[in-house]
Amino acid sequence: MKKKKAKTYFPEGFLIGGCSCGMKEKGKDLGVIFCPDGFKAAGLFTKNRFAAAPVVISRKHLPDGRALVANSKCANAATGKKGFRDALGTCSFAAKRFGVKAEEVLIASTGVIGSFLPVTKIRKGIVCVEKSFVKRPVSPEDFADSIMTTDTVRKVSSSGNFWACAKGSGMINPDMATFLCFILTDARTSSYSRLKKIFREEADVFNRMSVDGEMSTNDSVFLLSSMKKTVSESKFRKDLSNVCADIAAKIIDDGEGRKKVIEISVTGARSVSEARHLADFLAASPLIKTAFNGESPNWGRILSRTGASEVSMNTEKLSVYICGVLLYRGGPLRFDDKKMRKLLRRKEVSFKVDLASGAAECVFATTDFSEDYIRINAGYLS
Amino acid sequence: MKKKKAKTYFPEGFLIGGCSCGMKEKGKDLGVIFCPDGFKAAGLFTKNRFAAAPVVISRKHLPDGRALVANSKCANAATGKKGFRDALGTCSFAAKRFGVKAEEVLIASTGVIGSFLPVTKIRKGIVCVEKSFVKRPVSPEDFADSIMTTDTVRKVSSSGNFWACAKGSGMINPDMATFLCFILTDARTSSYSRLKKIFREEADVFNRMSVDGEMSTNDSVFLLSSMKKTVSESKFRKDLSNVCADIAAKIIDDGEGRKKVIEISVTGARSVSEARHLADFLAASPLIKTAFNGESPNWGRILSRTGASEVSMNTEKLSVYICGVLLYRGGPLRFDDKKMRKLLRRKEVSFKVDLASGAAECVFATTDFSEDYIRINAGYLS
Repeated sequence: MKKKKAKTYFPEGFLIGGCSCGMKEKGKDLGVIFCPDGFKAAGLFTKNRFAAAPVVISRKHLPDGRALVANSKCANAATGKKGFRDALGTCSFAAKRFGVKAEEVLIASTGVIGSFLPVTKIRKGIVCVEKSFVKRPVSPEDFADSIMTTDTVRKVSSSGNFWACAKGSGMINPDMATFLCFILTDARTSSYSRLKKIFREEADVFNRMSVDGEMSTNDSVFLLSSMKKTVSESKFRKDLSNVCADIAAKIIDDGEGRKKVIEISVTGARSVSEARHLADFLAASPLIKTAFNGESPNWGRILSRTGASEVSMNTEKLSVYICGVLLYRGGPLRFDDKKMRKLLRRKEVSFKVDLASGAAECVFATTDFSEDYIRINAGYLS
Repeated sequence: MKKKKAKTYFPEGFLIGGCSCGMKEKGKDLGVIFCPDGFKAAGLFTKNRFAAAPVVISRKHLPDGRALVANSKCANAATGKKGFRDALGTCSFAAKRFGVKAEEVLIASTGVIGSFLPVTKIRKGIVCVEKSFVKRPVSPEDFADSIMTTDTVRKVSSSGNFWACAKGSGMINPDMATFLCFILTDARTSSYSRLKKIFREEADVFNRMSVDGEMSTNDSVFLLSSMKKTVSESKFRKDLSNVCADIAAKIIDDGEGRKKVIEISVTGARSVSEARHLADFLAASPLIKTAFNGESPNWGRILSRTGASEVSMNTEKLSVYICGVLLYRGGPLRFDDKKMRKLLRRKEVSFKVDLASGAAECVFATTDFSEDYIRINAGYLS
């Protein structure tokens, strides 16, 4: 007898769906979320100076809203004034269809940078999803599918009153892929400012992961709450934390060309910001990433990269561990090469740098660098 | 009739050679320079906090000296106190053989990080080169060969009174390769402080190149002058500039896995340091490097990477050019795709970002990222 899969919780108050409006050659490419009674939203956006039109507009339309429109295939980034008009036009069109104000519509786009939004298709898509709400008002998988680009798996997660979906296989792909994440909940906290604060703290896990160190023009994380149910703040935080951590792990796991999932720990740092800075710097090292791809215990590359950073460190006492094995402290240490290679053959690997100059630390997730990564990213010939 | 190749100038006052002392499986691995009447030296060294023992010692032994010992195959880096004793021992041994003081001996090492110097072999090598001086006191090619690691070609250059050789195919190789460069001259300037100043200015070209953004533990550039001949300061500078530029070009051309040589220009920057910072940041972008590998005019990746940096920019007026063609200014511009692809098929390609916020600029050299790069750097399984 087959074990029945537990049904995923989906928060009250939202209608959600997705459809194909003809931007992708096949598959869904437009998603809509509608919340008739209104939601409170918080967002975390790219710091890129060339933030795409939808990012700039959504930032303005926070925190109160009723609808959200997302599309793949076109990022509407680096599209100048026309890009803004197209994005605002999308908000107005959706607003009319759903009988709300344009300022109550959030938008998110991902896909090719520098090409203009196919406005007619987008409108067709909005109407299509709106109509689908009559028969199937809650189709979260369709929404999740509509935002996928080079993702090889659909990324959804749920915990308690929270449901989330995301796209991104790093920021790294032929179409200048992006990290987009939508977290929905019907849980309310005591105030919007508390909700925002907890969101920022928990969504911070997305700032502690990297596939190739690139920051896109479209990265956005949204939290929408229909505010229907009162829960304790600790439960709110715990469930939000769970979905964020789960989505982050799924993004890294689907990192482009990924053979290894690498956990980087920096300990003994002077400050948390230094620990993060070093972890990020280590995660962007081609030499470290290729060493893990080759399953080689190359602590020298980790040490050298650490030494090239500007964080405070005690060079006499600093230690380097790979997969839990201490390999360097003040000089190279003997280790069981056979055992080490066995540990490195696993999919999940790790390394740690203890800076020996403070008590702050950071855990960071990244992937290795493979020939596939190059193949995928050099292959953009359209 | 074959055209006779012009004989390369080699500066007066130096004995130079190299031999095999058994560290490499085959080929020369130890080189010695001896200057009986003494040289004045200037150096430019890695800023890595884990600078190797030979770097720390050579830095101390500047500016007066009589001999220099270089080896490949072992970097003597991350080797703790024993590494320092071994390096100092090498100086003392060479000093005795050549009848000079240990402080008059400079050293440079490149190769595997974290393994100890094979002292007996090194000594054997020093004796071997010393003996070779009797019959062949000037064998610069042997010295140049002795410092090669994964370099695919010997890198030498000369101009006026200057001769130079270098190793490095990026810093990027299974053995934690390093950039080492030795510039010899018999030309003198009015004072050591002038020599040092001109050297620092001209050798700065080595800070405007990058293969993979990694900074090794052993990078060193030496200028040794036997001070035999008086030349004008402008001639001194011109010839030094020529050899530095030529060596820099040769290093990039031999960059690991290199298919393209990419010239990056940043113009319109608020300051030279911002221009350099951005050029360096662009050169370290996996997405830009793979786009050039794929011969794709992906200006969006250049724009996005620029936007992710923190330098001053006028986002309304900023322009992006690829191979001289303007592709973005305030929005995407039309271009002849066929012509663009033809330009990108060349080995030498370029791109430019005009920040439109000042008058400072920087030119920087880098390479693309290829599947070969990954293959070479993941392949370290010894």
